[in-house]
Amino acid sequence: MAEDGSYCPYFHHTIELIGRRWTGAVLLAMASGRSSYSEIRDAIPGISDRLLCERLKELELQGIVERCVSGRSTTYDLTQKGRSLQPILDAVSEHAHAWAGR
Amino acid sequence: MAEDGSYCPYFHHTIELIGRRWTGAVLLAMASGRSSYSEIRDAIPGISDRLLCERLKELELQGIVERCVSGRSTTYDLTQKGRSLQPILDAVSEHAHAWAGR
Repeated sequence: MAEDGSYCPYFHHTIELIGRRWTGAVLLAMASGRSSYSEIRDAIPGISDRLLCERLKELELQGIVERCVSGRSTTYDLTQKGRSLQPILDAVSEHAHAWAGR
Repeated sequence: MAEDGSYCPYFHHTIELIGRRWTGAVLLAMASGRSSYSEIRDAIPGISDRLLCERLKELELQGIVERCVSGRSTTYDLTQKGRSLQPILDAVSEHAHAWAGR
């Protein structure tokens, strides 16, 4: 944030990245331990394969997710940068529940 | 968040609301004390009047912003629900700066 809390391109980039359609749900699923493609997809009702692939690719490009291929299995793991989003996810959850339906 | 950190509609709604295009920047400007339309607009390089109006209206509908008209002056203020987004904005700023450019 700029000293006085005004516009900051880093803040802007980060909040719009995590708030893109479905991205928050993907991050939440991964943060709670889902790591195969099907585990992530099954944890998010309504997400399409096209969008899940797109979001995982974006997060990989941003250094938030890494794709690990080992033999016939592929997993998606949060990088250190991805894991350090946890305080944001926690703060969003807390607000969301405190104000649910209000 | 669901007990196991899986999909939660409240979390989903909140993260996508604050992450909509320009919304984060609007919230940051308001959280740092901008309250007239022109103060908010001037704090956000590149935002169009159309989008700023749209975002303010959305935030008003969500109970995050209230529009106060007094004589010829109109101000936009964060409601209690809006002010309680502060921990999210702080967590985003912290992550954004810790990983800036990485």
